Amino acid sequence: MSHFLPKTVRDLIDEMARLPGIGPKSAQRIAMHLLHSPESKIESLGNAVLNLKENLVFCENCWNIAESNPCKICTDEQRDRNVICVVEDILDAQAIEKTREYKGLYHVLHGALSPIDGIGPDQLKLQDLFKRIEANDSGIHDENSKISEIILATNPSLEGETTALYIQKHLLSFDLKITRIARGLPVGGDLEYADEVTLSRAMTGRGEF
Amino acid sequence: MSHFLPKTVRDLIDEMARLPGIGPKSAQRIAMHLLHSPESKIESLGNAVLNLKENLVFCENCWNIAESNPCKICTDEQRDRNVICVVEDILDAQAIEKTREYKGLYHVLHGALSPIDGIGPDQLKLQDLFKRIEANDSGIHDENSKISEIILATNPSLEGETTALYIQKHLLSFDLKITRIARGLPVGGDLEYADEVTLSRAMTGRGEF
Repeated sequence: MSHFLPKTVRDLIDEMARLPGIGPKSAQRIAMHLLHSPESKIESLGNAVLNLKENLVFCENCWNIAESNPCKICTDEQRDRNVICVVEDILDAQAIEKTREYKGLYHVLHGALSPIDGIGPDQLKLQDLFKRIEANDSGIHDENSKISEIILATNPSLEGETTALYIQKHLLSFDLKITRIARGLPVGGDLEYADEVTLSRAMTGRGEF
Repeated sequence: MSHFLPKTVRDLIDEMARLPGIGPKSAQRIAMHLLHSPESKIESLGNAVLNLKENLVFCENCWNIAESNPCKICTDEQRDRNVICVVEDILDAQAIEKTREYKGLYHVLHGALSPIDGIGPDQLKLQDLFKRIEANDSGIHDENSKISEIILATNPSLEGETTALYIQKHLLSFDLKITRIARGLPVGGDLEYADEVTLSRAMTGRGEF
């Protein structure tokens, strides 16, 4: 009786438990939920998984995932082509898009430098970023599409800060404004509960009232 | 820019977020994980979902999910056919199997009585349980397969206790030993942190040392 559950159920539990944030107990619960779901629901989930990469490409300009290459942001004439916002992954770009404040372009690194995890500059889309800026610097672009600012919007974590520093050092020789997203207290946060590093950043990064 | 992510990615996030225990943020994280996974991994997950119910049937004797009807537990001559353990769902039966202590048969109710959630006796496999016991009582079975004990192993929750009580009342007229799994302190637990109901149960249910 080592295999109490049928093989197809065990297979699904195994596959689900491999996903990030899903443990073996959650995977079991999901499998039971699906067992009691109508066939149509199971099919739509299964097909959504299988179709995930259908028609998807990476935009070879900004390395965002998209339905076309270059992607619709890179080709959108309404966007400000003077600014590139560098993010670690696609969801970060999505989060910035949701603010509806930013109208420039993106560059998705697909990670951050992390020697412990074996992630060096070659595992990220760093060379592509530098090439993009070099091509811009060579002056074949008109003034409207000349990159004038690079916003480093990597996470305010050890890896994100390291990555931002790495990029900044590489771009020193270019005629560019290099900025870093502000680190400070989250809106709605409480000074009392802020950690010291954040609070210290909020103090040093203070602006005129 | 309301739809920053491609449609296939949004579809997967929507489907994933409908599963129990997965919120929109987890669903996004899973979609990103799969986007960076090789095609083979995506296929094996998608197929595991689609194949879930393939060749699966409910055993019409114990209502466990199985690859055959009746299931291999119901047909296993090595098992003790005198005892039926009544559980709320399949995972409960699996948990009991894992103890390797129980050698009898099961009956899966597929839920517990919960008027608030609209779950009455007809939504559960209760009639099937009663019929199983009636058929047994009519004396067509030999002594080896005569049911002599019903173990009520529904959860020690309000719904589980109600269900157990309901079954017990229905079976009073039969010549059966009806037992309920013990409620008390979990092994490795601490008296100090036990809630009052559990501790009270542990005291009244005490056994000789």
